[in-house]
Amino acid sequence: MNIACGIEYDGTDYHGFQRQPRSHGATVQGVLETAIERISGAFSVVSSAGRTDAGVHASGQVINFRPQKLLRPDAWRRALNAVLPDTVVVRWVREVPETFHARFSALSRSYRYSIWNDAAPTALRSRYTLFCPRALDVALMQEACQFLLGTHDFGAFGHSPYDSDPTKPGPHHCIRTMLEARCTRDPVQPELIYCDFSANAFLTGQVRRMVGTLLLVGQKRLSVAEFAEIVRRAEKTHPGSAAPSHGLCLVRVEYPEKFGVNA
Amino acid sequence: MNIACGIEYDGTDYHGFQRQPRSHGATVQGVLETAIERISGAFSVVSSAGRTDAGVHASGQVINFRPQKLLRPDAWRRALNAVLPDTVVVRWVREVPETFHARFSALSRSYRYSIWNDAAPTALRSRYTLFCPRALDVALMQEACQFLLGTHDFGAFGHSPYDSDPTKPGPHHCIRTMLEARCTRDPVQPELIYCDFSANAFLTGQVRRMVGTLLLVGQKRLSVAEFAEIVRRAEKTHPGSAAPSHGLCLVRVEYPEKFGVNA
Repeated sequence: MNIACGIEYDGTDYHGFQRQPRSHGATVQGVLETAIERISGAFSVVSSAGRTDAGVHASGQVINFRPQKLLRPDAWRRALNAVLPDTVVVRWVREVPETFHARFSALSRSYRYSIWNDAAPTALRSRYTLFCPRALDVALMQEACQFLLGTHDFGAFGHSPYDSDPTKPGPHHCIRTMLEARCTRDPVQPELIYCDFSANAFLTGQVRRMVGTLLLVGQKRLSVAEFAEIVRRAEKTHPGSAAPSHGLCLVRVEYPEKFGVNA
Repeated sequence: MNIACGIEYDGTDYHGFQRQPRSHGATVQGVLETAIERISGAFSVVSSAGRTDAGVHASGQVINFRPQKLLRPDAWRRALNAVLPDTVVVRWVREVPETFHARFSALSRSYRYSIWNDAAPTALRSRYTLFCPRALDVALMQEACQFLLGTHDFGAFGHSPYDSDPTKPGPHHCIRTMLEARCTRDPVQPELIYCDFSANAFLTGQVRRMVGTLLLVGQKRLSVAEFAEIVRRAEKTHPGSAAPSHGLCLVRVEYPEKFGVNA
């Protein structure tokens, strides 16, 4: 039996998604595997669509696991939510074909980076937005986004996640396909700026480095042409640094229709 | 000099707005008065438009105070945000006419109560929404809201804030004018239901008791006609209990144009 779940989490207190030696602190994968073991009495490995970094949130993470215990999807959802901490929630559970793998079956991932752009900070959104009091020209940021679309070497903004996997000898390429890249202000609350990206897959740290560099464009410390050149050169030596993790959220993962995962 | 400020706060860790003896825990008024005293070197009383209960949030609270120190509005905003905790933020500061009083000058207050209505809870919105897994018929709740509009005795849903003020001998009436009462689902995220209310003023606990009773209507445990009768009778003996405070947020306060407070 192969079980897929939609997961929402507040990443503030987690050392990222991926399980780590206990001394490194709690991870989302760790608390999910502990919860599954408590319910089924046996350990099952949890695979995820995106291995989010420490402090990154998710509203639409997808996982799968092969439980030792037979329960209906709704019973899994209730049982998991009863034992999970409040900061990790199972939004839905579906039984999926044996061939489904949360990571390898995924067609695309979508991330949203949220910026609170106002002279004064925010109390109610500070956990999920980057506070940026400087003026930001969102139209310029949006213009720069056009140069991210399509299939490129994104080496300027990150490294392959396989680089840190001892089972995958390198070198690993940094070519990814960006399907969506957009910067917009919230129409109701214009202090909020969203940077939305969808790609077949992302490099480690890619969204946060793209946003860090787009913030320079928004502040007119980097021109759109210079941004385009940074993308084209695909070299790590450029002025953009990574935006902090708490503004980032994994919002959606798309799969082929045959798996019946996307509602 | 009379200074008005727009205040946003996460009420989770506060024992309400109103200052209390220190042994009762931190209040929003207390941390604001402490911050003003740290900056100006002298104590100034903070008046507020709404004395929110313990655990209630605000995105649009308005306060005023008469500082002993002369600073420009922007300097006040920066100085206050530098010394306030992250959970209380000054969104704007304006110098206002001497006759302005945050509470007595207010024409109306607007509150939003947010409900997370889904079989599964939420991790990212749990601090600011009531989790209600039962099916809710929002159309019925919206129908019931019509009976709240206009000038009524709202004694069914609360008591006068003056009842607990020893300087105001009672009895105090419970007549208020409801300008807006509306239940809607968020068009983008249909799990979110908003109950929005605007009135010239509210009784203590009124919004939370109105929402508690509307939730019975949404679950069809109370008919719209029974709800209308509860409003009409204005007696406290009815099946609705108060919804918990963490779903409630003071979102806006309106003042006469002459004060120049509403941007």
